[in-house]
Amino acid sequence: MQSINSYITEHKQRFLDELIELLKIPSISADSAYKSDVLKTADTIKTSLEKAGCDHVEICETEGYPIVYGEKIIDKNLPTILVYGHYDVQPPDPLDLWNSPPFEPVIQKTELHPEGAIFARGACDDKGQMYMHVKAMEYMTSNNELPCNVKFMIEGEEEVGSVNLAKFVASNREKLANDVILISDTGMIAKDVPSITTGLRGLSYVEVEVTGPNRDLHSGLYGGAVANPINVLTKMIASLHDENNHITIPGFYDKVENLSDAERAEMAKAPFSLDAYKKSLDIDAVYGEAGYSTNERNSIRPTLDVNGIWGGYTGEGAKTVIASKAYAKISMRLVPNQDWEDITQLFKSHFESIAPNGVKVKVTPHHGGQGYVTPIDSVGYKAASKAYEQTFGKTPIPQRSGGSIPIVSLFEQELKSKTILMGFGLDSDAIHSPNEHFGVWNYLKGIETIPWFYKYFTELKS
Amino acid sequence: MQSINSYITEHKQRFLDELIELLKIPSISADSAYKSDVLKTADTIKTSLEKAGCDHVEICETEGYPIVYGEKIIDKNLPTILVYGHYDVQPPDPLDLWNSPPFEPVIQKTELHPEGAIFARGACDDKGQMYMHVKAMEYMTSNNELPCNVKFMIEGEEEVGSVNLAKFVASNREKLANDVILISDTGMIAKDVPSITTGLRGLSYVEVEVTGPNRDLHSGLYGGAVANPINVLTKMIASLHDENNHITIPGFYDKVENLSDAERAEMAKAPFSLDAYKKSLDIDAVYGEAGYSTNERNSIRPTLDVNGIWGGYTGEGAKTVIASKAYAKISMRLVPNQDWEDITQLFKSHFESIAPNGVKVKVTPHHGGQGYVTPIDSVGYKAASKAYEQTFGKTPIPQRSGGSIPIVSLFEQELKSKTILMGFGLDSDAIHSPNEHFGVWNYLKGIETIPWFYKYFTELKS
Repeated sequence: MQSINSYITEHKQRFLDELIELLKIPSISADSAYKSDVLKTADTIKTSLEKAGCDHVEICETEGYPIVYGEKIIDKNLPTILVYGHYDVQPPDPLDLWNSPPFEPVIQKTELHPEGAIFARGACDDKGQMYMHVKAMEYMTSNNELPCNVKFMIEGEEEVGSVNLAKFVASNREKLANDVILISDTGMIAKDVPSITTGLRGLSYVEVEVTGPNRDLHSGLYGGAVANPINVLTKMIASLHDENNHITIPGFYDKVENLSDAERAEMAKAPFSLDAYKKSLDIDAVYGEAGYSTNERNSIRPTLDVNGIWGGYTGEGAKTVIASKAYAKISMRLVPNQDWEDITQLFKSHFESIAPNGVKVKVTPHHGGQGYVTPIDSVGYKAASKAYEQTFGKTPIPQRSGGSIPIVSLFEQELKSKTILMGFGLDSDAIHSPNEHFGVWNYLKGIETIPWFYKYFTELKS
Repeated sequence: MQSINSYITEHKQRFLDELIELLKIPSISADSAYKSDVLKTADTIKTSLEKAGCDHVEICETEGYPIVYGEKIIDKNLPTILVYGHYDVQPPDPLDLWNSPPFEPVIQKTELHPEGAIFARGACDDKGQMYMHVKAMEYMTSNNELPCNVKFMIEGEEEVGSVNLAKFVASNREKLANDVILISDTGMIAKDVPSITTGLRGLSYVEVEVTGPNRDLHSGLYGGAVANPINVLTKMIASLHDENNHITIPGFYDKVENLSDAERAEMAKAPFSLDAYKKSLDIDAVYGEAGYSTNERNSIRPTLDVNGIWGGYTGEGAKTVIASKAYAKISMRLVPNQDWEDITQLFKSHFESIAPNGVKVKVTPHHGGQGYVTPIDSVGYKAASKAYEQTFGKTPIPQRSGGSIPIVSLFEQELKSKTILMGFGLDSDAIHSPNEHFGVWNYLKGIETIPWFYKYFTELKS
């Protein structure tokens, strides 16, 4: 029977080619113009799961994009692993900052990836990391190495809030019953520093609209005499942080989990170079909440960021206009114990309350999700740790991620099982950014490591 | 010999048809995509001046769009009137707020215009008001009623700063020599309240760019740890006004002309209904600099307004991104004695100085112009006043406008003559806004009034 390593060596080129084909489909869930592409991607995933050896694969329709479900049950008495991933991707704009078209994948060598990296939207988040599991499954089934039962649940709305997945999970508890949930949609500290994500931030995403006069006005005839919605919006947004960059929304911090000095000291041990961080972003200084380190600011502390803003004349040249409306998209990253729906309501009430006379304000919640923390003494964590030791030759570091996978806390609530986040991406992969990429080495290392998790989890469970 | 009134009655339909044809050409000077349309408009103006009886008409090339010049010199010993206007228009967006396409003119009745109003971009600003002079000229030449010499100078870059006109004027003092400059590019208080604009605000228009990280970032992985250019831009813009809506740029008010209580009392006599003003804009309150009335805020006081802002994801749905860059277009309306180039420099220095660590700021001046005030005891003002008395049956009220015609102060400087601003538009004409229109009554009233100005100016000069 062939080892995973020799199997990868033999099939490496095909593993890359298959991923590249998958990356060519622009499955942008946020933009309805790509609906047919998103649906086409679901079909492609279905076929790939069948080829990988799943006995029963189906496209589960929802009110939005479908969920691809597949399973292979070898013995009801053996443990069951539920693999979650998503086949939708972030919008690729701004397009002009990509060095190659986002949906025409290319493999390029980089300083960090001398073996080459696949450049394309979704290369890492999450098509590449999701597909590692499909290929690991293929290895296990074709080499009679599958030690337990497995279920796949691959959705197409992760980048827009997983609203329909939540409904699907709540109404399919039996079908999805499992002993552990395995996800690769996070990163690791460095290629030589494996890590397991033990925490995720929650999210509340809202859109705000400020309306002043009922029509665009001439800034000469009306300038200075009526509320300019853009000026007002900037004042309102600016007021959401104080001089220490604390968020000023009343009640915002009430439920925030405060880590002990010991826990913060433990976190501070993770290798981190502020100089390298600043250099990689070409910034002369970091910026954030007073009293916290960079790694704390982007993991254990909640934040409020404007993700988009627009209003008035944004074309070439000049137009002396006072716009009737101004808009912003604002997201808040939340930490464990902050309820995203409570926070959304707090934001809405506060933002509406600070609107000056002369404008009307509308706050529209987009979506959100709860934060999540997982213990490091669970069977799943131990199995993952042993798998990394096997393939990296060192024990992985537990780390909190600043990102959000809204569905994870819901999994625990509905399915009563823990999620293990085995991420193989790097911060430098530029997910959600132009030139997103995923190292060929990382992709193959993921495929190599996953079967070991299956092995150790099954052993530790027995 | 036919009277102006009977001439208008006889040719009314043709006057409207000709203007409508002119309005069909999208001469948007701010957008280079419309270059051929802007040039076509210049040719149309040339032809119309020839038909109106000018002896010598030429297209004067510049580094930008051409200036159409035409003249009729009947006697070197008689006074000369220089008519200025512009054939370019503002961009029409937002297009979705127009009730009919901006370049497909339609005549519709409105509450204020029971005789109908022409709806189209440029209907009032300034194709309609400029064309009144062409038709008045046609009447005078075809009825042997032209009492003095006349020169026309119609440019195509007023909406983008008249940069090349300034050079043209400075290098053609002889050609443009005149006794008074006549412009219709302003408004009047109401159809039954004729007014003459005696002041204009200056303008400084800049574009700002804030750059944070060298690429768009995932707001989960980086949120809270790096300066978000949009959050920073909102803070910087918000700080430009204090709690009394005074502008905080050091030195900004140093040269601002302060009107005496008597002058302010005189201004306050102009008929104005705050309720009607709020109702027409559908706002529950006005907004502006503490200590000044609405009419003062938009005429004798300088202002700072954001005309456009953009950054990050502005498409459909949600994208959790921290943008690399954020932008805004900002214009300042200036009052007499404030030098626009000084103010532009003050803005640039201040805005760059308030940038926090972690971002880079770039300020690009677009264009600008000086404010202007004209005395009410000049021959030109008296002639205009008598002309309005003749056709409106009442004495016009002198009023300061909040708008800017940057070129006016330059005319006085280069050509040593005063400008008379005879405007026939109304604030409700929505210039620079969707559904710009110009009352048929106003259009014809302008054509009727202009020849009387020629008559009285020539008499008073002799």
